[in-house]
Amino acid sequence: MKILIKNVDIITCDNHKKIIKNAYLAIENGYITYIGNDEKKDFKPDRVIDGKNKVLIPGLINAHTHCAMTIFRNFANDLNLEEWLFNNILPAEEKLLPEDVYWGTLLGISEMIKTGTTAFLDMYLHMDKVAEAVADAGIRANLSKNPLDFDENGKVINEDYSFFEKWHNGENGRLKTSLEVHSVYLYNEESLTRSAECAKKLGARINIHILETVREREDSFKKYKMSPAEIALKTGILDVPVTAAHCVHLSQKDIEIIKEKKVDVVHNPSSNLKLGSGIAKVPELLKSGINVALGTDGAASNNNLNMMEEMHLAALIHKGVNMDPTCVSAYDVLNMATVNGAKALDFEGEIGVIKEGMKADVILIDMDKPHMWPVNDLVSAVVYSVQGSDVDTVIIDGNIVMEKGEIKTIDEERVKFEVEKTAKRILG
Amino acid sequence: MKILIKNVDIITCDNHKKIIKNAYLAIENGYITYIGNDEKKDFKPDRVIDGKNKVLIPGLINAHTHCAMTIFRNFANDLNLEEWLFNNILPAEEKLLPEDVYWGTLLGISEMIKTGTTAFLDMYLHMDKVAEAVADAGIRANLSKNPLDFDENGKVINEDYSFFEKWHNGENGRLKTSLEVHSVYLYNEESLTRSAECAKKLGARINIHILETVREREDSFKKYKMSPAEIALKTGILDVPVTAAHCVHLSQKDIEIIKEKKVDVVHNPSSNLKLGSGIAKVPELLKSGINVALGTDGAASNNNLNMMEEMHLAALIHKGVNMDPTCVSAYDVLNMATVNGAKALDFEGEIGVIKEGMKADVILIDMDKPHMWPVNDLVSAVVYSVQGSDVDTVIIDGNIVMEKGEIKTIDEERVKFEVEKTAKRILG
Repeated sequence: MKILIKNVDIITCDNHKKIIKNAYLAIENGYITYIGNDEKKDFKPDRVIDGKNKVLIPGLINAHTHCAMTIFRNFANDLNLEEWLFNNILPAEEKLLPEDVYWGTLLGISEMIKTGTTAFLDMYLHMDKVAEAVADAGIRANLSKNPLDFDENGKVINEDYSFFEKWHNGENGRLKTSLEVHSVYLYNEESLTRSAECAKKLGARINIHILETVREREDSFKKYKMSPAEIALKTGILDVPVTAAHCVHLSQKDIEIIKEKKVDVVHNPSSNLKLGSGIAKVPELLKSGINVALGTDGAASNNNLNMMEEMHLAALIHKGVNMDPTCVSAYDVLNMATVNGAKALDFEGEIGVIKEGMKADVILIDMDKPHMWPVNDLVSAVVYSVQGSDVDTVIIDGNIVMEKGEIKTIDEERVKFEVEKTAKRILG
Repeated sequence: MKILIKNVDIITCDNHKKIIKNAYLAIENGYITYIGNDEKKDFKPDRVIDGKNKVLIPGLINAHTHCAMTIFRNFANDLNLEEWLFNNILPAEEKLLPEDVYWGTLLGISEMIKTGTTAFLDMYLHMDKVAEAVADAGIRANLSKNPLDFDENGKVINEDYSFFEKWHNGENGRLKTSLEVHSVYLYNEESLTRSAECAKKLGARINIHILETVREREDSFKKYKMSPAEIALKTGILDVPVTAAHCVHLSQKDIEIIKEKKVDVVHNPSSNLKLGSGIAKVPELLKSGINVALGTDGAASNNNLNMMEEMHLAALIHKGVNMDPTCVSAYDVLNMATVNGAKALDFEGEIGVIKEGMKADVILIDMDKPHMWPVNDLVSAVVYSVQGSDVDTVIIDGNIVMEKGEIKTIDEERVKFEVEKTAKRILG
């Protein structure tokens, strides 16, 4: 399919912070093949989209979520992480069937597409069902699973690589896989070591939660006599590419480890705030040159999967906490949600930047609304004023997945019906 | 006009946190005259609104803004308050004409109505033009102005009560007036004292900024040898009802003064974060029994006038900063944006609570969307998941001001055109 977008202002998110006003952008066979102020010669598009009063940016990348947790949205609020997780969420999750995860994931994807997210990194249960939902919805994702099962001593009792074989690089390259290591607290030294070896063998990225709470830090010192970052280093977890969610309670030594091992950090401001976990030292991480991406976490601790909201929050809180309005700029945050996220999902060089040769994951935002008027500064408007509902058109892998707010790949009414049924069955 | 809303779930925001499911609500001559699960007998409505899949809550109350600053939306970002205010905003404001303020206010009102705000407290320039915009738009407001002009020693050089005479209790009681005292740093002991006397004489509430920044605190000690709260107390400012915006840097003594004098505090989380001012100690204020309302501040330091976004933020940040997910509940925040705001605007007992006999300022939120599905908890859904764009219907003073997202009282295209012209003239 050939698409021409005309009359559009483009925030490219490339290294030079380039903004191109009133441009033409051509998409062919899933790739961006032309950007310029003059019309592309001899280009016969199948579809022309008028970008007047719209801004085109890279599709947003949600670098940490548990998508199917939409089922538990607004269940068990205003509790701390341990009470929330161990006494409410985990018992509910035990009742989840594979089909529930399929529909819950589709609900989350619906929300993500509508608010401009075109790729996400997910770890959850029944990952084959998550992959089916991703395939059906036409979104891009990196999905994490651990092929190993362990006994209580961390000895491998089962290996199953079928998920990786079936899905890695599938769906025209929209789908990648990575190795889930939930956290050092749900593992032990042996199972961490075996998982790291397995990741090396597969050539897989590891997706892990690190230092979300103070308690995680304390428990790690009790269990391992060292911090979660240190035990991850010791067991070889950090010898492969790693995406580490949260990183709220890093010591100076932990920051050095993460920098040295080029770990991709995912900042999840809503979830960390809502669960009372704390606030990651994002200005310090950015200053250290660490790649910081942005994520929503699951809908049960947020309670949205809305990256526009997450950008807004990330752009505000560090200024207030550090009493320094210059410490995280609007552009920093836009990069976190796009190009930095691409790295954290193993899609670097494919998506996250608008330039010729990149895959066509782009969104159009309708700026013609009172709440962003007048548009005195384009990047600030996108980060501080735009709402998720302002996303008009979503193109993923060169396909128009949403247009005028209407998703073409998902039967929303069916999805809502199925998820409500599940929520009623499990939560009563 | 008689309106019947049927099949609707109501969050009442009254003392008992009452939620009424699947109810009928009748509005007659601007008042709520009936709420119940059975249809009202012998009631012949002019209009029937189906509330299926909708939630009805009190219209949100924005207790601190400078509405016409929409003109400067997304201008001069990522700067600290003093640099932002004195070197960017004030020079731009000097160029504002009365007509500019009229259109800028209408733009702000458009955004507020669309995101569920039905009343606001405003202080700005050319307040007669603000009042005209409020009158034309059909929104409710309390508008602040100081009738006194002072020389540099604080001596009164002019008095003009025409604004108060013209607008107080006007527009069927939709419009109230209050006395602006911008801040103790733009005043001196003499002008504070004269303003307090004037407020007493008028029987007017005072609207003031207090302790927004650390620098304000330091400057106050240099200028007055005491904190802003203490000099306000000393000069009689706190002897009338007072709405104090920000209150970020209160000492324990300041908190006691504010509690003792029953000052209504307005929390402005976005603005305080964005300008790097800091974070108000809201959990402590609430625990002290102080009335805390919620505000957006002006669009130039936010950059929205969206109370849904503000509620969301207020519900999250204190949990994270205090590492306590229980310290400010979803219901606390909903009260801040409704019943607490009514007190801060001098509309206590008239609006902010859904019950019979109250004025009909109500909004309907469309819950039938993926991002709030499933609705496992109604109050949490409204505070954590609802977006401003989910507001479907807005009724103010018994009049349907917005329906299906369409404002009936404002020509949005004209407003955007006029404001853009102003922004171009002033900002280039």
